[in-house]
Amino acid sequence: MKNVIVGQSGGPTAAINASLAGVFETARALGLGTVYGMRHGIEGLLKGQVIDLSAQLHDSMDVELLKRTPSSFLGSCRFKLPAPGTDDAVYTALFHKLEALEIGYFIYIGGNDSMDTVSKLADFFSEDPEAPMLIGLPKTIDNDLAGTDHTPGYGSAAKYLAVTMDELIQDTAIYAVPSVTIVEVMGRHAGWLTLAAALPKMLGGMKPDIIALPEVTFDEDIFIKNVEKKLKTTQNIVVAVSEGIRDERGQYIGSDAKSGAVDIFGHAYLSGVGKYLERLVGIRIGCKVRSIELNLMQRCAAHLGSLADIEESFQIGEQGVNAAVNGETGKMLAVRRLSDHPYQMECDVI
Amino acid sequence: MKNVIVGQSGGPTAAINASLAGVFETARALGLGTVYGMRHGIEGLLKGQVIDLSAQLHDSMDVELLKRTPSSFLGSCRFKLPAPGTDDAVYTALFHKLEALEIGYFIYIGGNDSMDTVSKLADFFSEDPEAPMLIGLPKTIDNDLAGTDHTPGYGSAAKYLAVTMDELIQDTAIYAVPSVTIVEVMGRHAGWLTLAAALPKMLGGMKPDIIALPEVTFDEDIFIKNVEKKLKTTQNIVVAVSEGIRDERGQYIGSDAKSGAVDIFGHAYLSGVGKYLERLVGIRIGCKVRSIELNLMQRCAAHLGSLADIEESFQIGEQGVNAAVNGETGKMLAVRRLSDHPYQMECDVI
Repeated sequence: MKNVIVGQSGGPTAAINASLAGVFETARALGLGTVYGMRHGIEGLLKGQVIDLSAQLHDSMDVELLKRTPSSFLGSCRFKLPAPGTDDAVYTALFHKLEALEIGYFIYIGGNDSMDTVSKLADFFSEDPEAPMLIGLPKTIDNDLAGTDHTPGYGSAAKYLAVTMDELIQDTAIYAVPSVTIVEVMGRHAGWLTLAAALPKMLGGMKPDIIALPEVTFDEDIFIKNVEKKLKTTQNIVVAVSEGIRDERGQYIGSDAKSGAVDIFGHAYLSGVGKYLERLVGIRIGCKVRSIELNLMQRCAAHLGSLADIEESFQIGEQGVNAAVNGETGKMLAVRRLSDHPYQMECDVI
Repeated sequence: MKNVIVGQSGGPTAAINASLAGVFETARALGLGTVYGMRHGIEGLLKGQVIDLSAQLHDSMDVELLKRTPSSFLGSCRFKLPAPGTDDAVYTALFHKLEALEIGYFIYIGGNDSMDTVSKLADFFSEDPEAPMLIGLPKTIDNDLAGTDHTPGYGSAAKYLAVTMDELIQDTAIYAVPSVTIVEVMGRHAGWLTLAAALPKMLGGMKPDIIALPEVTFDEDIFIKNVEKKLKTTQNIVVAVSEGIRDERGQYIGSDAKSGAVDIFGHAYLSGVGKYLERLVGIRIGCKVRSIELNLMQRCAAHLGSLADIEESFQIGEQGVNAAVNGETGKMLAVRRLSDHPYQMECDVI
């Protein structure tokens, strides 16, 4: 009887635990062995921090509650595996941990970096017939994974953006003095979440006056001219801006003022493009200006979770276990859209 | 037939439009004259910016939607009347505007500064038998008005705080590295809203590890010691802090770093106590630290509006018109709590 191990990695979402619930329920339904959870992803696994999920999830109500709980139930990590061939010690250590637990199915829920982990493990284990089946389940509020129509977690975050932006636009319009409000949204390389700020417009509401995405080069002079032009006809301007906007040299806006610090994955450590643009508008235009950072709320607002997102995330977990049991390995689950009206999808293994 | 005029002033809430809806509905039901709205409070009234509310609210569905719309529908202002006796020109100008519109009932919805406006107008008009009845309706997310059990608007903001804090605590607990998260909450002189961060605990959830209120002198050394002590037993610390915390000299924490700017009411212009404490923890402790400002979201999150709050705000509007028609003037409506279980209240005129 082969056991299952499941982990979560990277930033959490409001829907990531639904995939975990899907893995647990399906492994139980298929009569697989113990379903282990890694605390803090593979970093915790290396330290032996592993729990038996059945000790946490006693009945179907527990599983339902887990589906609706934001953040990563198992904890997360940002642990980068060394490039294959450079340092085998970590891989060997992981192999021994998995062997000791008699793991047949290894499921890892995360974003780009987590899929990188699954891919590297699959490469390392490719010659080993005893290695567990390795499956990645996508999640990210950034919606920036290739090969899938969209990523679980994005829908709930987009719903938060839409609702919150609609309320913020109402709030910023109250005073009879010209003002600029800059709302900073997560998204290092992808503007999907920032674009969701325009969703209220599709339902008869309003949208931000200016939207700045990382996919489009940001020019400070053009931005200031745009704001000045809009202030001639609109008293209270709202700007939605991705944290990852860059200038024509590819430099993050505002990053000159920073230390050049990078995170463990070598990504520039971003904070405060909103604050930077607030100061810029203050200096160049001189009107009332404020910046708002949607911060962790945009990824953990389970109270605005999307039911479609939660159910799809659960289904991804379900199909991930099925794929592993069917002998797939080194693969990621993906969403394929079948129709828009009504919305229908199915899962691919890619 | 005497007409009614109603205005909104100060910061908005998720429930302030419910009081406006209550005023409109009741004036209509009582067969009073035209119900005018001041755009941007008395500042707009002085400029003749007045609308006929019946041109905006056509049927009961419009009124229902207004009850559930965040922000101040009529716009707001922060306009301070001169001290009585120092400059009568503004009072005289207001009197002529009200006379021209044949206003018998003047209703002003707002916080401390707005009640100050009602009080000053009442003083100025006290000798004039032709003056309109002047009634103030309380609203503020700070819950800092005297004479009322609580203020409309607080309940919805408290609900936002409770839900958001619960989700943030979940989110901050995911990484296996010590961290401090500082959440900055509105409340210049009153800690009620920051205290609402502890509400999830009453429902079996969690609460912040440290709560700092403006009513309690804040000592940076004691704070750092507390954080260090808690970090010994808890990996991820969450701190809820009111924007208005002060040191033993009465200085706002972090205000030394600022320009000393004050707003039109002479209040120190606050921003960034969260950022200040973030830097302090970074320098003194050196662990991972971030700050989160709940910013405008905490006052405009109508999607988390409290039904009790909305209904009570409506009732306050209703009873405000009744009080004016009954000849009350220079008074404020207040909530008197009759019982906790079940929660029951009635309106007083004070």
